[in-house]
Amino acid sequence: MRNILEYDSVELSPNGRDVIILDQSLLPNQEKFLHLTTAEQVFYAITLLKVRGAPAIGLAGAFGLAMCMNRFRARTLQAFDKEFLRVKRYLYISRPTAVSLMWTLDRMERCYYEAQEAAKDMSEPDAIKHIKESLTAEARAIKLEDVKKCLSIAEAGFSLLHPGSGILTYCNAGHLAVSRYGTALSPIYYAQQKGYMPKVFCCETRPMLQGSRLTAYELTKAGVDVTLICDNMASDVMSRGKIDVVFFGCDRIAANGDVANKVGSSMLAILAKHYGIPCYSIGPTNSIDFHAATGKDIVIEERPAFEVTDMYFDKPVAPKGVKVYNPAFDITPAGLLTGIITEKGITPPGKLAKLKND
Amino acid sequence: MRNILEYDSVELSPNGRDVIILDQSLLPNQEKFLHLTTAEQVFYAITLLKVRGAPAIGLAGAFGLAMCMNRFRARTLQAFDKEFLRVKRYLYISRPTAVSLMWTLDRMERCYYEAQEAAKDMSEPDAIKHIKESLTAEARAIKLEDVKKCLSIAEAGFSLLHPGSGILTYCNAGHLAVSRYGTALSPIYYAQQKGYMPKVFCCETRPMLQGSRLTAYELTKAGVDVTLICDNMASDVMSRGKIDVVFFGCDRIAANGDVANKVGSSMLAILAKHYGIPCYSIGPTNSIDFHAATGKDIVIEERPAFEVTDMYFDKPVAPKGVKVYNPAFDITPAGLLTGIITEKGITPPGKLAKLKND
Repeated sequence: MRNILEYDSVELSPNGRDVIILDQSLLPNQEKFLHLTTAEQVFYAITLLKVRGAPAIGLAGAFGLAMCMNRFRARTLQAFDKEFLRVKRYLYISRPTAVSLMWTLDRMERCYYEAQEAAKDMSEPDAIKHIKESLTAEARAIKLEDVKKCLSIAEAGFSLLHPGSGILTYCNAGHLAVSRYGTALSPIYYAQQKGYMPKVFCCETRPMLQGSRLTAYELTKAGVDVTLICDNMASDVMSRGKIDVVFFGCDRIAANGDVANKVGSSMLAILAKHYGIPCYSIGPTNSIDFHAATGKDIVIEERPAFEVTDMYFDKPVAPKGVKVYNPAFDITPAGLLTGIITEKGITPPGKLAKLKND
Repeated sequence: MRNILEYDSVELSPNGRDVIILDQSLLPNQEKFLHLTTAEQVFYAITLLKVRGAPAIGLAGAFGLAMCMNRFRARTLQAFDKEFLRVKRYLYISRPTAVSLMWTLDRMERCYYEAQEAAKDMSEPDAIKHIKESLTAEARAIKLEDVKKCLSIAEAGFSLLHPGSGILTYCNAGHLAVSRYGTALSPIYYAQQKGYMPKVFCCETRPMLQGSRLTAYELTKAGVDVTLICDNMASDVMSRGKIDVVFFGCDRIAANGDVANKVGSSMLAILAKHYGIPCYSIGPTNSIDFHAATGKDIVIEERPAFEVTDMYFDKPVAPKGVKVYNPAFDITPAGLLTGIITEKGITPPGKLAKLKND
């Protein structure tokens, strides 16, 4: 079995002509890599959740745009320009809520105009070649920066661990969701490499089962000692002294330190407080939304009943037509968190403002 | 749609020759009543979870024993005696952990010897007829007493409600699990009949989904306003002010008031305390085990990984061979409970001793 850290869930082939993704929708039953060679294939891979996790989606967009332009046989700069804008706008709407996708595609567009400017005295074929190379380099740079952030996060989180630490994690903010190592899982991978042999408990995370399908999968592949539990067993494992620290990701952090993350995160934070266990939310600083003063300013997406009653099951598991409440996220108040871990280190939840001024 | 309260999940036919059960293993997709006419059929209905819920299992045993003896064509009292003991011992082991089954079968045996004694001057055919009638009456009496206990519990729980109360419930301690109305659900049915129109939130209860498969089913059938949530959403609905009280059942209560119940009950009690919501464990007084001083004296059953990774799913949802921790129950410390509701009313968890002396 190949260690999962030896390959990434989203890659650009060395010649820049294929986006290679691990199809996350088939995990853990099938491990299939897809070679995407058209804008349409990238679009549907994102829409159908073959690529998921905000940073991974952003990366798929940047690589997808570079791949499409590398494959485009442009006779003129005008034709190249038209195609670039078409593909960029098309990929932009593949997952409307993924801010990271818009962020990477906008960055690719800024790179495009800079490369155009730099190539303005070249012949048309040379200019096209230069722009293609610039876009490819920019997409690869986005990935490298992301990997670097994850490593900084890993080091900060690692400072909280000791050999054999018991760690409870939630949903999937791991290697599969990010460029490499992940956010909430990166201290675990780092500790494993340092020989700390952490003992990880991973909640299955209903209803989409990202914990059992993805986190248990990637930690197992990496040789980490992981035990799967149902979400309602977190209190039991904490009460038995098996957990030293709780690590979960973040989808959006308000200025006051309230964290929006996968529904159930607030449950873990309350249980951790009850049992006296430190609890951290982990993510890059670009997850902090300084426009949202508190968690109340973050709108929580409600998802369809189908996910709770039918998804993954061989038959419906609830009576037909039953009312279902299925929020995708919940708000963990800043006061319940011990700290927020970013690439800039560990910050008390009430002191995020200083990260803004850096 | 027939109201579920108009029929019971375990019944004895009027002529005493059929045990009629609603096959719970097929719910919520199929509503099928089985007519059991042999000891073997009763045995497998219990073993294969077609009847589940401790009181319902106990009742199936008592009715099953009465049914078998009513159908047995005995020429002599000696043959009748041999068959009675055979069936009783056979049914006794159909579910070794269900104490209520042993309790009802032992009670049927006491009734049998009393009837034998009372019939000692009768002719053999008259004595057999008398014993059959006595056993049938005893089994029906067990059920009636159970129904009465549930009604007393309903009234005690109802005293805590007001019109439109938001109630969070867990697993299934309802009409299907007990003779009628259930234990933890009985105050809800009672409130519904009184026009209080409670708003119930029901946790799906992983991994066996008794909440979505059974509780959501029976409350829907009874016309109760019920909303299904995943277990990890309980904190979110509490934080939104939707819950006025938490009601869950009990599998065993220690003398000091610690409660063993479906895993996740301690999570609900901790969340309720955090949000300032009262939380009650509900069951008949025969759930109190005065031999267990505290929750530490109650052994927690660990169940197979299969239930978490494969059960109900169309494909496995976790990587093959992943370690799974699957405790069936957890311990809610007495200090987290507002009270324990039995047929004798509402008792502070620390004051159970007075129920012993009654």
